[in-house]
Amino acid sequence: MFKRKDLLGIQELSREEICFILDTAESFKEVLTRPIKKVPTLRGKTVINLFHEPSTRTRVSFEIAGKRLSADTINISPSASSLTKGESLKDMAKTLEAMNPDIIVIRHPIPGAPHFLAQKAKFAVINAGDGAHEHPTQALLDLLTIREHKGKIEGLKVAIVGDIIHSRVARSDIFALVKMGAAVKVVGPPTLIPPLIEKLGVVVEYNLERGIADCDVIILLRIQLERQNRLFFPSIREYSRLYGLTLAKLSKAQKDVLIMHPGPINRGIEIDPQVADAPFSLILDQVTNGLAVRMALLYLILGGES
Amino acid sequence: MFKRKDLLGIQELSREEICFILDTAESFKEVLTRPIKKVPTLRGKTVINLFHEPSTRTRVSFEIAGKRLSADTINISPSASSLTKGESLKDMAKTLEAMNPDIIVIRHPIPGAPHFLAQKAKFAVINAGDGAHEHPTQALLDLLTIREHKGKIEGLKVAIVGDIIHSRVARSDIFALVKMGAAVKVVGPPTLIPPLIEKLGVVVEYNLERGIADCDVIILLRIQLERQNRLFFPSIREYSRLYGLTLAKLSKAQKDVLIMHPGPINRGIEIDPQVADAPFSLILDQVTNGLAVRMALLYLILGGES
Amino acid sequence: MFKRKDLLGIQELSREEICFILDTAESFKEVLTRPIKKVPTLRGKTVINLFHEPSTRTRVSFEIAGKRLSADTINISPSASSLTKGESLKDMAKTLEAMNPDIIVIRHPIPGAPHFLAQKAKFAVINAGDGAHEHPTQALLDLLTIREHKGKIEGLKVAIVGDIIHSRVARSDIFALVKMGAAVKVVGPPTLIPPLIEKLGVVVEYNLERGIADCDVIILLRIQLERQNRLFFPSIREYSRLYGLTLAKLSKAQKDVLIMHPGPINRGIEIDPQVADAPFSLILDQVTNGLAVRMALLYLILGGES
Repeated sequence: MFKRKDLLGIQELSREEICFILDTAESFKEVLTRPIKKVPTLRGKTVINLFHEPSTRTRVSFEIAGKRLSADTINISPSASSLTKGESLKDMAKTLEAMNPDIIVIRHPIPGAPHFLAQKAKFAVINAGDGAHEHPTQALLDLLTIREHKGKIEGLKVAIVGDIIHSRVARSDIFALVKMGAAVKVVGPPTLIPPLIEKLGVVVEYNLERGIADCDVIILLRIQLERQNRLFFPSIREYSRLYGLTLAKLSKAQKDVLIMHPGPINRGIEIDPQVADAPFSLILDQVTNGLAVRMALLYLILGGES
Repeated sequence: MFKRKDLLGIQELSREEICFILDTAESFKEVLTRPIKKVPTLRGKTVINLFHEPSTRTRVSFEIAGKRLSADTINISPSASSLTKGESLKDMAKTLEAMNPDIIVIRHPIPGAPHFLAQKAKFAVINAGDGAHEHPTQALLDLLTIREHKGKIEGLKVAIVGDIIHSRVARSDIFALVKMGAAVKVVGPPTLIPPLIEKLGVVVEYNLERGIADCDVIILLRIQLERQNRLFFPSIREYSRLYGLTLAKLSKAQKDVLIMHPGPINRGIEIDPQVADAPFSLILDQVTNGLAVRMALLYLILGGES
Repeated sequence: MFKRKDLLGIQELSREEICFILDTAESFKEVLTRPIKKVPTLRGKTVINLFHEPSTRTRVSFEIAGKRLSADTINISPSASSLTKGESLKDMAKTLEAMNPDIIVIRHPIPGAPHFLAQKAKFAVINAGDGAHEHPTQALLDLLTIREHKGKIEGLKVAIVGDIIHSRVARSDIFALVKMGAAVKVVGPPTLIPPLIEKLGVVVEYNLERGIADCDVIILLRIQLERQNRLFFPSIREYSRLYGLTLAKLSKAQKDVLIMHPGPINRGIEIDPQVADAPFSLILDQVTNGLAVRMALLYLILGGES
């Protein structure tokens, strides 16, 4: 059962809650294959997508999820709006609350912003990414994708490769995988791996080949090319040579290894096209499962029991 | 009864029309408390939110209002669009009219733009703010909020404090309050009060303490920090010291004084946090009533009789 | 009958397919005159408007068309979004496909982008303008407008006037009109008429008066003022003097000539206000017919048989 008002992070979820979300998401996957992919479950509910950072992929996923459940969806991008002009997050929370929406899906550059919003207001909050902190729906869709293809998560060996230090996906994935009993290695150049990350229950490896050796699943992270000015490695070219995943480097991993990536991918940088397009690449399964996970969460949180 | 095609300003409304809108809004407040906050009244109607100036708050309020009445809502922000490139407001009106929407909610920097639109086209028009001219739905939600808390408007003493000269909220509030029989004072530095404003039936006061003395309601206006380059007062700091409302200054007002502000508020500038968060502050009631007033207007104008 | 998965261009359509689309659009015009302008035909279908170039007019037309058919509509403007950051059109196609939308309406600056999208993904694609290549829904609405007012297209003499070389409207109109049996002249300064355009079955004329002599229909194109830096003619003033359509110049055309323009118009540049607002100007009929054509295409492509 899921009895929370909000979904703020993976860190606070129990193993049972995670399993329940994944099971619910699985049942929504069936809805997505119907000719009429819409159910009346959330008719009359209002879902606000409040995205302080641009994100077409996640916003569209939540918007489709809401519409397929018959909720009313409203998009706010406060960058260019009066909501941000001198208005604190607390005042924004109170203002939105006064319009009585049912749920706010928030992406915000400041870690903890969704938690603050959830505390201040009585509407439900889903964290769609807060700074370098958490991106819980991404971790849940990753778990769903792994479970679908491996039949389990417990006991699997998973490598997370790339810019660990700036990645909310890495943090949420680590919390989720460790909680579910997987063995997690983080792999990348020393400048991109935060000190003391071992405390989260992971093993650190700086060498890609050693990092992915005998792994069941490899999760590649996106190199944020738009942050190139603050260089944490000598060059894109060097990063790609050392950490970009190619078929050749993959020969060190398990025969039935699975490749995942939160997208959008940089072909030829962190992932070679031959890997991205291989049959063992689950990148598009992740997108589909993202929709199912978000429908499940909207449904569970808004308490649709019809 | 309300028989107008458009809502363009408070100035042209009769006292009876205003009361009828407020009564209708009150009945919609009940809908907003239901678990399913949606009624089928405007099914198949198309509401276009045409916002030439950014405004999350008002746009979202109209969008939620439309969706709760089951109308189809469409957002246009012509700043970055071809509609503005060399296309006159008249041609835009005619183009939109040819798509046969039922109502256009327009915010525009030019005073009178909504009136022009309404004249040129057969769809209904609601003015969501035209330059420094009018913002009628704000005034209506202010009246509703005052009536709810004081039981009446007639005979009340209301102070409007701040940047009167640039404020469409001030103008609409003045028209509305004077029409309903309230005694209105405008309070602010001489540079922010337009000459001859007494002709609108208000009293001018440059001193805050004297301005709010024995008032029943104080409406604070937002200092537009984004317009700081054109300074109408020596500094924000000085403005705040002289006209920012604090608990100490409030001691000069009535014991049961009510505080209102159209939002978003600048904490510590025109309003002290202790005032903004006080039990006698109605700022969030205003937001909720805004939704009810906008639902009422969409309903009345689109003639929903179902 | 219309059995295509996509509508990518006029070039590949048969005369029969075009007639069938026009007939379907005509029947949707009736729906648009009802008090409740909404039919449940596409309930549960998802229409994504993916506009890589700003276009309020066409985007709103498709959005209204989708909503009147009860489809869920989602807008994406990838300019400011992560979809564009290093993500190829192919990866974007695959990502969108994984969310299982029913149809993507795409505007893109690169000619052929919609065709590429359609090839890579199983959802349906409608081309809403690809570079200077095609804008098929514009040509279809132009045909519908001509047929409505002249009773036929075959045998008519049509002049297309202006910036032929940069215009996707001109190309789609030429394909459509020639296919339907009209005699087409293209008229404009030599710098704005592509070499070898005669191969498309049209006659070239550099003089406006000669160009429009004895024409039944004149389609004026928009001068893209925003492209003024790359000047293809000495000045706007000279263009207007030589090619701007005035009542005086029109005296050389047929008595019952019809004037069309895809909008937005530049009054006083390519079209004199007296011409734009004349009873024989069909500019606003085109907008209304655009809605009907787009409803027809969404309906035909999504195979609504209810």
